[in-house]
Amino acid sequence: MKKLAIGVDIGGINTAFGLVDENGDLYAESVISTKKYPYVEDYPAYVEDLCQSMLTLADSLSFDYELVGIGIGAPNANFHKGTIEIPANLWRFRTDETNPDPARRIFPLAADIARRFQDKQVLVTNDANAATIGEMIYGNAKGMRDFIMITLGTGLGSGFVANGELIYGHDGFAGEFGHVCAERNGRECGCGRRGCLETYVSATGIKRTVFELMAKMNEPSKLRSIAFDDFDASMVSAAAEQGDPIALEAFRFTGEMLGRALADAVTVTSPEAIFLFGGLSKAGKLIFEPTQWYMEENMLSVFKNKVKLLPSGIQGKNAAILGASALIWQKNSH
Amino acid sequence: MKKLAIGVDIGGINTAFGLVDENGDLYAESVISTKKYPYVEDYPAYVEDLCQSMLTLADSLSFDYELVGIGIGAPNANFHKGTIEIPANLWRFRTDETNPDPARRIFPLAADIARRFQDKQVLVTNDANAATIGEMIYGNAKGMRDFIMITLGTGLGSGFVANGELIYGHDGFAGEFGHVCAERNGRECGCGRRGCLETYVSATGIKRTVFELMAKMNEPSKLRSIAFDDFDASMVSAAAEQGDPIALEAFRFTGEMLGRALADAVTVTSPEAIFLFGGLSKAGKLIFEPTQWYMEENMLSVFKNKVKLLPSGIQGKNAAILGASALIWQKNSH
Repeated sequence: MKKLAIGVDIGGINTAFGLVDENGDLYAESVISTKKYPYVEDYPAYVEDLCQSMLTLADSLSFDYELVGIGIGAPNANFHKGTIEIPANLWRFRTDETNPDPARRIFPLAADIARRFQDKQVLVTNDANAATIGEMIYGNAKGMRDFIMITLGTGLGSGFVANGELIYGHDGFAGEFGHVCAERNGRECGCGRRGCLETYVSATGIKRTVFELMAKMNEPSKLRSIAFDDFDASMVSAAAEQGDPIALEAFRFTGEMLGRALADAVTVTSPEAIFLFGGLSKAGKLIFEPTQWYMEENMLSVFKNKVKLLPSGIQGKNAAILGASALIWQKNSH
Repeated sequence: MKKLAIGVDIGGINTAFGLVDENGDLYAESVISTKKYPYVEDYPAYVEDLCQSMLTLADSLSFDYELVGIGIGAPNANFHKGTIEIPANLWRFRTDETNPDPARRIFPLAADIARRFQDKQVLVTNDANAATIGEMIYGNAKGMRDFIMITLGTGLGSGFVANGELIYGHDGFAGEFGHVCAERNGRECGCGRRGCLETYVSATGIKRTVFELMAKMNEPSKLRSIAFDDFDASMVSAAAEQGDPIALEAFRFTGEMLGRALADAVTVTSPEAIFLFGGLSKAGKLIFEPTQWYMEENMLSVFKNKVKLLPSGIQGKNAAILGASALIWQKNSH
């Protein structure tokens, strides 16, 4: 009988999920609103809605299959414990609690969902880790035992694979490469510290860079007519493709920051390849060329010209669902 | 029958080796001169001498045992290929070849030794990796699945363990934490780049710091009477224990550089503990206290106050032999 897994991608606005086979083929997909359940108190109703919708989707297939398990990608997810920690971007406290009881912030999501699915295997991990496993199972990292995945979105996420296994770390939170220090006393980061890599290398990072360059450089640029609040990272790609000097310099600088950081990452895990996934990576050679150049320029000689810098093989709208479902296939291939 | 492994530590001056059991007990040990064989052309004679001496040692035990294998720690060793790359500090080209044929620089050490031992298992890895496995098998990392080992000698070596396995990386050269960039355009490193962590955090690193501080600070210090060429890192510890202001500041600064770098390493692999081994680590709280403080100060909040900073449990003169022999026990426990 065909085996299928459910992949679930929990985002701040929507929760998307689908039925996926071992080859990454998607048989059915659906979506519920995450935003409809904004408060901590709404969490049980959210889980109920999600489970009900998944059961409906699972029943909708016209052929017999075996449901192997459910893989979930979510912010602040802990693979070891099967929990997610709020408040992430997801659930807020209705009352204005600034420092609520830590225990109240942890939801046993995997257990709560498993209960509704006859205790099928339910695994959760953060979005970047899910994408990493998706790359390994369905994407360009097939057969690789050592690689690094960099996901470029609003922030910078990452997954490190060594000896064929994702590094979750002691507490399940490893792979926070967006928060290595790229510049001492640099830009303020959402994490409360300064100079984190994602304040430079991400959609918001390149936007900040553009505004810094408008102050530094004198060259004219169409970008100068757009207010910070109206500015979107996609405008930088569009401008760069038309030869805008500020946009081009912004990409060069972003590649420099990423390339330097990757050179350091390589000295630690010595990967076969590094994959760039999501938003900024779609700018193609605008981001790949400077990243590669600065990575090689700063590389310890033993690693020079060895590490491939590649686009992700699972780009596209279903990548998050595929990645989450891959958690199940990876677990069951051991 | 008792099972024993031979552990071999190849250093620039001597090659030490011994017979070790699974608990890390040493039954016999011996040493040959590495220095006696300085040239590439001497390599076959060196291997012959080493094998002969190991066979003699193996025959010297008065009880019956099974020799399980030979583990070797050496500079520039490649675990995957069983090779060592020269010129390291070990073998030079007799002629003044500055860019010899790359193939001539690679010695198949594991295969060359295995031939003399009825094809017993022979594994090689670099010194820091051997120490890391020693810590895991015999030391304070017993039972830990995620930890980092930092070896502080003339340089800074490291070993990263994730999911219970040492990270060798795609090419066998992972774990070069001494060469992450600690200071952009910083101190010149032996690797040809600048600002590598080991130019600050190592025996030579703290010596360089002392001389920088003599220029920066005005306070009197006994260290000012010693010439650079006569200076040894142990003098910094001795002076610091007597309250010397330059020596104390040198330790604070060294701890700051190491602590900052470790905070970044933690974001990637999220270890349960970090072990400090060798030379500088013997300075105790002089190095542990500032390292811990700056590590926590620069840590992403999710990792704060979770990661133990601990002394190695295999300090002492036989650590290198034990670590090398542990390669065999680790391989055979899988």
